[in-house]
Amino acid sequence: MAPVAPGGTIGILGGGQLGRMLAMAAAQLGLKCHIYCPDTEVPAADVAAALTRAPYADAAALAAFADAVDVVTYEFENVPAETARVLAEHAPVRPGPLALATAQDRLTEKNFLSRQGIATAPFADVASAGDLAAALERIGAPAILKTRRFGYDGKGQARIAGAAEADAAWDAIGRTPAILEGFVPFEREISVVVARGIDGETAAYDPVENIHKDHILDRSYAPAALDAALAAEACAIAGRIVAALDYVGVMGVEMFLLPASAGTARLIVNEIAPRVHNSGHWTMDACAAGQFEQHVRAICGWPLGSPARHSDAVMTNLIGAAAVDWAAIAAEPGARLHLYGKAEARPGRKMGHVNRLFPLGKRPPVT
Amino acid sequence: MAPVAPGGTIGILGGGQLGRMLAMAAAQLGLKCHIYCPDTEVPAADVAAALTRAPYADAAALAAFADAVDVVTYEFENVPAETARVLAEHAPVRPGPLALATAQDRLTEKNFLSRQGIATAPFADVASAGDLAAALERIGAPAILKTRRFGYDGKGQARIAGAAEADAAWDAIGRTPAILEGFVPFEREISVVVARGIDGETAAYDPVENIHKDHILDRSYAPAALDAALAAEACAIAGRIVAALDYVGVMGVEMFLLPASAGTARLIVNEIAPRVHNSGHWTMDACAAGQFEQHVRAICGWPLGSPARHSDAVMTNLIGAAAVDWAAIAAEPGARLHLYGKAEARPGRKMGHVNRLFPLGKRPPVT
Repeated sequence: MAPVAPGGTIGILGGGQLGRMLAMAAAQLGLKCHIYCPDTEVPAADVAAALTRAPYADAAALAAFADAVDVVTYEFENVPAETARVLAEHAPVRPGPLALATAQDRLTEKNFLSRQGIATAPFADVASAGDLAAALERIGAPAILKTRRFGYDGKGQARIAGAAEADAAWDAIGRTPAILEGFVPFEREISVVVARGIDGETAAYDPVENIHKDHILDRSYAPAALDAALAAEACAIAGRIVAALDYVGVMGVEMFLLPASAGTARLIVNEIAPRVHNSGHWTMDACAAGQFEQHVRAICGWPLGSPARHSDAVMTNLIGAAAVDWAAIAAEPGARLHLYGKAEARPGRKMGHVNRLFPLGKRPPVT
Repeated sequence: MAPVAPGGTIGILGGGQLGRMLAMAAAQLGLKCHIYCPDTEVPAADVAAALTRAPYADAAALAAFADAVDVVTYEFENVPAETARVLAEHAPVRPGPLALATAQDRLTEKNFLSRQGIATAPFADVASAGDLAAALERIGAPAILKTRRFGYDGKGQARIAGAAEADAAWDAIGRTPAILEGFVPFEREISVVVARGIDGETAAYDPVENIHKDHILDRSYAPAALDAALAAEACAIAGRIVAALDYVGVMGVEMFLLPASAGTARLIVNEIAPRVHNSGHWTMDACAAGQFEQHVRAICGWPLGSPARHSDAVMTNLIGAAAVDWAAIAAEPGARLHLYGKAEARPGRKMGHVNRLFPLGKRPPVT
């Protein structure tokens, strides 16, 4: 398959910050971007050569969009299957439908991981209140009930402390197809951002440790403080996942690190995201090639860039009103400020991030 | 003066690669860009929120453009004075008119430098064939006759080996107002990219050594191999220039290093460019804040970023057909490829550049 050469055009579904940073990375490599997004405010369009503003169900608009580009990618995993199918008739869609189908459904995802022999939290399919009761009996409490589809940043989830809370949880998530996940007493949450090229080459960035606030990623510490064997194992797991999906592009793989005393696997996979990932934003400033360039390289059939880390980094999301501190951050030596060009700083909205760089081995401890 | 805050808009005159890289740096900081350019192909527009395609003499279009932005800057020094005047009635223009007037005219520039006590090659005003004869007598041959205005990349210049060639040289440059510059037997050509903020703060990147081919910059080696005192002197000269011009933004200052045996000043200034500079492209990948971000910070009234070099670098321009090697460069570990999105690789056209990074102190020697 011939690569998409400089001068070619990448179509991106979604016009938020991930699409925006993809478009900037593509431009650096001489590639144009065409954004497809139904929203009124489209931060990615400010740095893209073209914008189609249309619903994701508009088959004619999708076809015209895909005809105008050389490859289609996306910034969010909930691309409707029918949207992807229409697009794929007109242009390659990367990552492909298997990755989308797997990542869009928590049950499909967990079953896929289990088939690969990759450890996860205990889980059970919940299609009814009766299923939930049976699942709770098997898995035990505490546990977390999650909708199979369309969950993100803690949405579509209900914690269950004991069987008495089952009905309320089932109501809370809207009595929709779900899975019950056993509570895992993890020590730390880590993630690996991995890339796979069209030729099957893979490249993983160093695992990072993630700290959440209000169910939204707050900080990533790069690298995670892991012994070398565990770090290598985390990267190997991510590599097995992208290989099994015949994946093309960058993927975020979220994992839990269990205490050594657990007597089980230390690393279990929580979820995968078939796209560039918030926990990979540190790579923009601390690695030879950042995740956005890496994704562009992969989907365009270019050789992957080096994921080598030249600095340690702490990435902090600027959420909602936090972005008003831009002037103080801009004045801070060594802080790399990234703002997404969003007009309104609503609570919980990702407005930007800052990467603070440190010499190798010198990042501050996780707090 | 209040800074231009995130969400604000920078107007950029010129739509080539410098405007393009400025627009990307601005976007990273949450600022929008509006390009003003008369050309059909506008590489910067692919990464900008808005484009006005109109002549530089269209006062109505200029006024509407300047009314739509918070600050105006430019990617080329030959902005007509009348254009700058019209714009300045509607928005701040940075760098300001004094810098433009000084850099647009080689005689004005040399006189300015002399007034600052900054060494230059010997020079003389040439308004006629008679002036040229007198100037040659005073300065001696070999010497270089240069048009006062609109020269770049070796254009508008004629070398004079002896008095017998004077008439031919005067014809060659079109019998237009000129200066004669004495030939300077320099050891090396270096440059300093310096920034000055609205509050007068200055920050210089390390001096680099520049190698030209066919009168076009081919490579910059960062840092130049200079002893610390000379490097500091080069930066201090650049700092004096921007201070004397009450300058706001990034400036490129080209200098010649004379042999120690000359018994004169070792550093003389060749010319200044009131804009981001090709010899500063290495800073994009080897410094905490690159020159494009630095220019955006300066003209928006933000604090300057750190110019500290975290890596050594060799920047190589990809000129004309050289850009066909993109795939080999993309496969080279540690090479940072930048392509400008230009459709046609005409001879002499700057299509992109590549920054090759090396650990501090480890850059290869100049070849």
